[in-house]
Amino acid sequence: MKNNICSFVFLIFMLAAVNITNADDGYKLWLKYDLISDVDLLKEYREMIHAIMIKGESVTIQATSNELKNGLNGLLGSTIPQVSNVNEDGIIIADAFNNLPLLQYTDLQSKLMKVGEEGFVISNEKVNGNKVIVITANKDIGVLYGVFHFLKLLQTNQDISTLDIVSYPKTKLRMLNHWDMINNTHEYWGLLSIWYWHTLPTYIRPHYIDYARANASIGINATSLNCVDADPQFLTQENLKKVAALADLFRPYGIKMFMSPNFNAPIILAGMGTADPNDLQVKEWWQKKVKEIYELIPDFGGFLVKANSEDEPGPGDFNKTQADGANMFAEALMPYNGVVIWRTFVYEYAPEDRAREAYDIFKPLDGKFAENVLLQVKNGPLDFSPREPFSPLFGAMPQTPLMMEVDISMGGLGKDVNLGFMAPMWRETLMADTYAKGEGSTVAKAIDGSLDKYKISGMAGVANIYLERNWTGNLFGQANWYTFGRLAWDYNITSEQIADEWIRMTFSNDTSIIHPIKKIMMGSREHIVNYMDPLGLNMLMGWGGYRGPWVDNSEHATWNSPYYHRTDSLGIGFDRTKTGSNAVEQYYPQVAEKFSSIETCPEKYLLWFHHVPWTYKMKSGNTLWDELCYHYYKGVEGVREMQRLWNSLEVKIDQEQFESVQMLLKIQYNDAVTWRDGCVLYFQTFSKLPIPEGLKKPQHDLEYYMIHDPR
Amino acid sequence: MKNNICSFVFLIFMLAAVNITNADDGYKLWLKYDLISDVDLLKEYREMIHAIMIKGESVTIQATSNELKNGLNGLLGSTIPQVSNVNEDGIIIADAFNNLPLLQYTDLQSKLMKVGEEGFVISNEKVNGNKVIVITANKDIGVLYGVFHFLKLLQTNQDISTLDIVSYPKTKLRMLNHWDMINNTHEYWGLLSIWYWHTLPTYIRPHYIDYARANASIGINATSLNCVDADPQFLTQENLKKVAALADLFRPYGIKMFMSPNFNAPIILAGMGTADPNDLQVKEWWQKKVKEIYELIPDFGGFLVKANSEDEPGPGDFNKTQADGANMFAEALMPYNGVVIWRTFVYEYAPEDRAREAYDIFKPLDGKFAENVLLQVKNGPLDFSPREPFSPLFGAMPQTPLMMEVDISMGGLGKDVNLGFMAPMWRETLMADTYAKGEGSTVAKAIDGSLDKYKISGMAGVANIYLERNWTGNLFGQANWYTFGRLAWDYNITSEQIADEWIRMTFSNDTSIIHPIKKIMMGSREHIVNYMDPLGLNMLMGWGGYRGPWVDNSEHATWNSPYYHRTDSLGIGFDRTKTGSNAVEQYYPQVAEKFSSIETCPEKYLLWFHHVPWTYKMKSGNTLWDELCYHYYKGVEGVREMQRLWNSLEVKIDQEQFESVQMLLKIQYNDAVTWRDGCVLYFQTFSKLPIPEGLKKPQHDLEYYMIHDPR
Repeated sequence: MKNNICSFVFLIFMLAAVNITNADDGYKLWLKYDLISDVDLLKEYREMIHAIMIKGESVTIQATSNELKNGLNGLLGSTIPQVSNVNEDGIIIADAFNNLPLLQYTDLQSKLMKVGEEGFVISNEKVNGNKVIVITANKDIGVLYGVFHFLKLLQTNQDISTLDIVSYPKTKLRMLNHWDMINNTHEYWGLLSIWYWHTLPTYIRPHYIDYARANASIGINATSLNCVDADPQFLTQENLKKVAALADLFRPYGIKMFMSPNFNAPIILAGMGTADPNDLQVKEWWQKKVKEIYELIPDFGGFLVKANSEDEPGPGDFNKTQADGANMFAEALMPYNGVVIWRTFVYEYAPEDRAREAYDIFKPLDGKFAENVLLQVKNGPLDFSPREPFSPLFGAMPQTPLMMEVDISMGGLGKDVNLGFMAPMWRETLMADTYAKGEGSTVAKAIDGSLDKYKISGMAGVANIYLERNWTGNLFGQANWYTFGRLAWDYNITSEQIADEWIRMTFSNDTSIIHPIKKIMMGSREHIVNYMDPLGLNMLMGWGGYRGPWVDNSEHATWNSPYYHRTDSLGIGFDRTKTGSNAVEQYYPQVAEKFSSIETCPEKYLLWFHHVPWTYKMKSGNTLWDELCYHYYKGVEGVREMQRLWNSLEVKIDQEQFESVQMLLKIQYNDAVTWRDGCVLYFQTFSKLPIPEGLKKPQHDLEYYMIHDPR
Repeated sequence: MKNNICSFVFLIFMLAAVNITNADDGYKLWLKYDLISDVDLLKEYREMIHAIMIKGESVTIQATSNELKNGLNGLLGSTIPQVSNVNEDGIIIADAFNNLPLLQYTDLQSKLMKVGEEGFVISNEKVNGNKVIVITANKDIGVLYGVFHFLKLLQTNQDISTLDIVSYPKTKLRMLNHWDMINNTHEYWGLLSIWYWHTLPTYIRPHYIDYARANASIGINATSLNCVDADPQFLTQENLKKVAALADLFRPYGIKMFMSPNFNAPIILAGMGTADPNDLQVKEWWQKKVKEIYELIPDFGGFLVKANSEDEPGPGDFNKTQADGANMFAEALMPYNGVVIWRTFVYEYAPEDRAREAYDIFKPLDGKFAENVLLQVKNGPLDFSPREPFSPLFGAMPQTPLMMEVDISMGGLGKDVNLGFMAPMWRETLMADTYAKGEGSTVAKAIDGSLDKYKISGMAGVANIYLERNWTGNLFGQANWYTFGRLAWDYNITSEQIADEWIRMTFSNDTSIIHPIKKIMMGSREHIVNYMDPLGLNMLMGWGGYRGPWVDNSEHATWNSPYYHRTDSLGIGFDRTKTGSNAVEQYYPQVAEKFSSIETCPEKYLLWFHHVPWTYKMKSGNTLWDELCYHYYKGVEGVREMQRLWNSLEVKIDQEQFESVQMLLKIQYNDAVTWRDGCVLYFQTFSKLPIPEGLKKPQHDLEYYMIHDPR
């Protein structure tokens, strides 16, 4: 006890001191705008930036102007004046191109041809013989994006003397999906919504605006506010007014508002006898509701729908297809140019192999969806495991635009408490080759529309933004929010580059800080795979807080882990080849062939596709059992290594941030040990094989892990 | 629509600007420590404060030292050194008296005789011929309290050249009751807990410490973390560790940890067949659980219990008395000096008059409670209405210590969104005369123990602290937290004085700011009484968010408003005299007599005690009906006046704070109109009388208010 008190007391005084000296609590995200600390560079920037010139007057341009002024004032440490003429060097000109008569005859015009409605161009130009930097675009929102990009160049200490940047998004809808509840809670136990529904629409919190700023800074242009497990009450007039208040705040930042409707709303809100999507009265009800929404939010984006999945209602309840359901909403939204985003995560038909489900249901419906429907497909066939092969739906529905849905919130990877950098994971899927139209038909090309000439395209991320002062719980969650925006804009950016940008803006441009943090980030996801779900395993988590494994095979229902790992005395893994569920047939032949053979299947997916004997010899020469154990232990070692690297940063970085991540890594380490020991002991009851020599024995027996489900 | 967008846009840029320039978001509460803005005074303070001398080494003294240094550094704008000898003028000496050998022979000793374990003395002294200021106490915690008091003197710009302060608390337990749930929500819909249960015990948030600092600064020395509607899960080992982590953080600040247990925990957690308080196995289970708690929290305070009230389990379920229930816990806690705080808010016996219930049940049990039991009695007989007469239990249980429970969270007065200053309300009860031992037997004297020589005494407040950056939602909620601490320490402090201190520390020492804010605060509670529950009415609220009235007499159950206002064609009000429920008999004769007669009963309690004809002539000469209407309209006018006064402060005070309160006052105004119009129209269906001339007709008809229950 005494020791405990002492260490707490130590903590107290550190924290007390921290508070009063304005520690970095993470609220400002990557938009810090602190004074440039490199003195020479600061001098150089100051020489190149004397004033700004912005003439546009739209609300977006006003937001742009504010951002540029505040950003430059902070970064350069002095107030940058606004001018209306170019009479000297060092003017930053930021405006839509049609507001820049002096520049009409430069080659900016041809560059702008490429960037569409949201892209931008930044370049050094000469106006009246004066050196200026021009940030321009076809539309005002592009200028805002360009300004954020320009500020990032300064934040990350880049050279700004030879700028020739032409940037535009690969996908049209870059969207956050919030899983927030109407009572200010969140789909995930213990997490909380940032919306404070009970004081909207009148009470406008400062963080609503900063949320919009942060999204705009990384090109996110759409958001769905409420959980896909949708409370029908969100659709009442009273609550729509609350949504409208937020839409008004987000509009200048180019963010469109979406909502998740409850499919049975006509029954629950209006007392109708049915919600059958083909019923005329039901259709009429939705049309009226949609009209009501557009009266409040004239540029409303549309609906994001989860139907017939995990007990949510849907068209299947009325013997109608998923297409019937989607098209009913599409028809109501069409007159207003709204879209329906329909999730393929369908979890109600309880087949032999859930991993088959989305493809089996949706592939036959290709061509049956209205023009303004997009299907939203999770990166893998199942449900946000730490690693899954890509979903076979990508590339398989040439007539239906598919969005990819990734989980920024790390629902299956330890959620808000864990440190995991998701860029490598999402890029793993984006760069996977579907072979839909021969080699090079990557998932990225399937979703950006280039493969099948989709008219709309998009990428969605389940938001990891909660009522936390630093928005995401673990500070590194900010990196995933940032990554999502960056990859949705351009999937060709490498994980290293994203990490580099984010670290520089969040922590420092000092390489002795950047290197260890980048090392932590780049390895982090693989550590989680190793201690949770190595070698293609998945869905092992217990239900408490998903923070430990489910090590109880008392039930074999589709909700339970044994359904997914299929462990028995002979081996482990789900046979998805011809001898099993044959889910592998859903891939294009080149892929299917590779995954089908236990020889050619990448070991990282081995147990996803194959039921493998315990003594099967792996490429390393180890038996499967030994290899499995080594992976679990390696995962825990990885977390230990992250702790070591992080601890090396003490004093170098802000104390509050240091301590916060340090405490969370301690939780993660303990959870990792729970995963490792629980899983190894549990699987051992089947394999009957010893834990390889040299690996430390688990501290507790299996029974401990069967009742220990940490929250 | 367009107008709406424009005003929002206006707002956006104001807020965006505010954010970046470090606006005052209210997080620091009244502990701001900004540089003294009066230049002459600053000079004077600097001359009198050169250094500090603190030699004690306990964790509490370390916290004290940190606070004093940080406070002085901020207020005086320079780093104040710590010295170990008195060699010059201007030393602030802060330590327990036994650490001050140089001062043993001053008259400090006699002053310290009066202040007990928690009080303190502050005075100008001479040591070795040098002028010093001494802050001392019998125990370290008193020194901490003294330092906060001293800093307040500077914050509020007081003279510190002739200090002779002797201060000590009137009550022993000064306790917050949090109504927080284990999933991070709160008893009140939409509000959220500050505890982040899911990342405790490992992740220690900075605000946990600042919570402790704030409480210590106003003398609060106990806290109960979870809602009295208690989730039994709080008592598991895993969750107790979380509570222990917080207890460790609070300990240096003199705050004892309490918890609310679920009475049926032995059944729910241990699968026992009963929770009968007289059952030996049940007693044993609790004894083991209490032992487990004390192993984790050696100075645990005890339990706060709600039993057989609003569907909570309790001894009544096993045909045992409330005393049996309390004594079971008392027996388990006794070996550790723990106490049981047992609430008299019993709501299950459904009598004819709920206002009688607490007295009828508990008065006969006087003398039957174990020594370490305190009863916690709400200020009024019923349930936190905007105005109730004092509870007749005060002064009526000479053998049982009674604590008073007040509602800092304004559950019945508009909760977190409303501006209401509670000091006048609580002092109204504290200063009420029970006549228990003749004239002057105030409620205050009943609860501080002086009337009946209680060994323990206390005052509890239902906390209004939520997951809001400014802690309380409406900034003025901070004033109520502050008030609670101040009154629990010394109920003789006037409301004006409390308001004055709080305004100076929160906003400014500028009288042109103090005056309008004080005017707002001093009138605020009466406005709420007027537009919600005038003339002794109560419990009129609807169930949505308690933010509008219940105007539907379809049911007459004890949960519904008609039960409380008893309106009919003849009149309105609850007859609690001999011709009715005779609740008035529960008071001592002098009081009972006054309340019993419609002539002598104060009009503010009229409808609490009497069923009064619509045309009864009030003291003003108006009929009751007209008077009722005038009160409702006056209430709304009062809110309008608060808005006017507040708007006059624009530019004068911090913009973020200004806007935040402005928006909330707008909500309050709309709610007030809903209350007024809904109630007047509803009561009119009984009185059949016209709304007096000169008063504006309600905008909607009654039906609108019957379905309009704002959240």
